[in-house]
Amino acid sequence: MKRISESTVRRLSLYLRLLREVDGNRELVSSQELAERSGTTAAQVRKDLSLFGSFGQRGRGYDVAELMASLQRILGVERRWKVAVVGVGKLGSALLGYRELARRGFDVVAAFDADARKVGAKRGDLEVCGIEALERVIRERAVEIAIVATPPEAARPVVQKLADAGVLAILNFAPIEVDPEDAVVVRTMDLALELEALTFALTPCQAGERAGG
Amino acid sequence: MKRISESTVRRLSLYLRLLREVDGNRELVSSQELAERSGTTAAQVRKDLSLFGSFGQRGRGYDVAELMASLQRILGVERRWKVAVVGVGKLGSALLGYRELARRGFDVVAAFDADARKVGAKRGDLEVCGIEALERVIRERAVEIAIVATPPEAARPVVQKLADAGVLAILNFAPIEVDPEDAVVVRTMDLALELEALTFALTPCQAGERAGG
Repeated sequence: MKRISESTVRRLSLYLRLLREVDGNRELVSSQELAERSGTTAAQVRKDLSLFGSFGQRGRGYDVAELMASLQRILGVERRWKVAVVGVGKLGSALLGYRELARRGFDVVAAFDADARKVGAKRGDLEVCGIEALERVIRERAVEIAIVATPPEAARPVVQKLADAGVLAILNFAPIEVDPEDAVVVRTMDLALELEALTFALTPCQAGERAGG
Repeated sequence: MKRISESTVRRLSLYLRLLREVDGNRELVSSQELAERSGTTAAQVRKDLSLFGSFGQRGRGYDVAELMASLQRILGVERRWKVAVVGVGKLGSALLGYRELARRGFDVVAAFDADARKVGAKRGDLEVCGIEALERVIRERAVEIAIVATPPEAARPVVQKLADAGVLAILNFAPIEVDPEDAVVVRTMDLALELEALTFALTPCQAGERAGG
C-alpha cells in the first residue's frame, strides 16, 4: 500500500470538484482539461489517478460519471458524513451557514457553544446545544466529524471530549496544535499559517541564500 | 536555490508559532521540543532548518530569539503586511474579527462588499467600502494581500480586479480555482477539500487496493 501525499489528496479533491462542475450532458473529460482547470499538468493528472487503478482510455479521456464515482469512493465521500460544529462565534456561524458543505456530502447535525446566552438559539435549522451536553449529543446523533471553532484556550479540552465521545476526525480552527489521546484524525487550519505560505512565496530570501542564523 | 515544499513551509510556520508561545524568560529550545509540539521528529526539525543555513549548536539547542527572528525573515513576516477582505458576509466578518491576524503581522486595512446595504457599515474600526471603489482603495491604502470571501460566482472578477489593482497575493475562500492573468500568488482554501482530506484518511480503500475504474 503506497503512501499517498497530502498534495495528491488535495488534487484528487480538486478533480472531483471540477467533475461536479462539468456540464451534465458531457460524457468524457480529458486529463488535459482536468489539468488546466486545476493548475497542474496532464501527466500529473494521469499519475495521480494511476495510483488508484486504471482509469480512462488513451486518446479518449475519462468517463465523467465513472471517474466521479471512483474519486468519491477513494476520498470516502460516496456516502454522507455527520458533522458537528463546536463554537458558534463568528467563524462557527459562518461554517453553519456554508451551504457548500451539504452539497459536498457533509451534513451539520449539531452545534455547541459554552456561552449560555447562545444555547437554545437557532442557527438555520439547528438549535445550539450547551457544551456540557457535548458527549451525549455527539453519541445520540452519531456525529463522525467535528469542526472546532472555539477560542484557542478552549480547544484542547473540547478536542479531548470529542475524542472521548467517539468522533473519528476533527478539523481544528484554533491556532494551536491539539493531539487527543485517542486515535482520532486531527487537521489544524490556521489562517495565519496560510497567509505565511503566501508571504514566504513573496519573499526573495529562499533556501541556500542565507547562511548562519 | 532549492525548491522548498509546501509541507516544509507549513512546519516552519508552526515552529515560529510555537516559539512565540515559549516562555519569554527561556533562552534555548531543543529540536526535540519543537518536534513534539509540532507533531514531527527532531531529525525533521533539524533538516527543515538546515535548508536555510546553520542554526543552533549540537547538544545545546536553538536560541529562541535568534531562531524566531530567522524564521520571521524566512517566512517574510519580519515586517507587517497590509491586507484587505473582500466580501463581508459571515465568513468575511469572522475574518475581520480574527485578532490572531494582527498578532501575526497582518493588518486588515480595508473591507469591501457588493451589497449597498453593507457599504458604510462598521466592522470593528473599519468602514466597509463598495466593490466599485475596490481598485482605488486598494491603491490608496497600499494593500498587498487580499482575502476573497465572496460568493463563488463573484470570485473570478474580484480576483482579476485585485490583480489589476496591484495586490501581490490572494487567499481565496471561494470554492473555485482562480487564475488571474497577472503574476499574483493565489492560494485557494476550500473547507470541503479539508474535510475530504479527513474522510480520505478515514477510508480503508487506499492506493493499490482497487483496480479498474
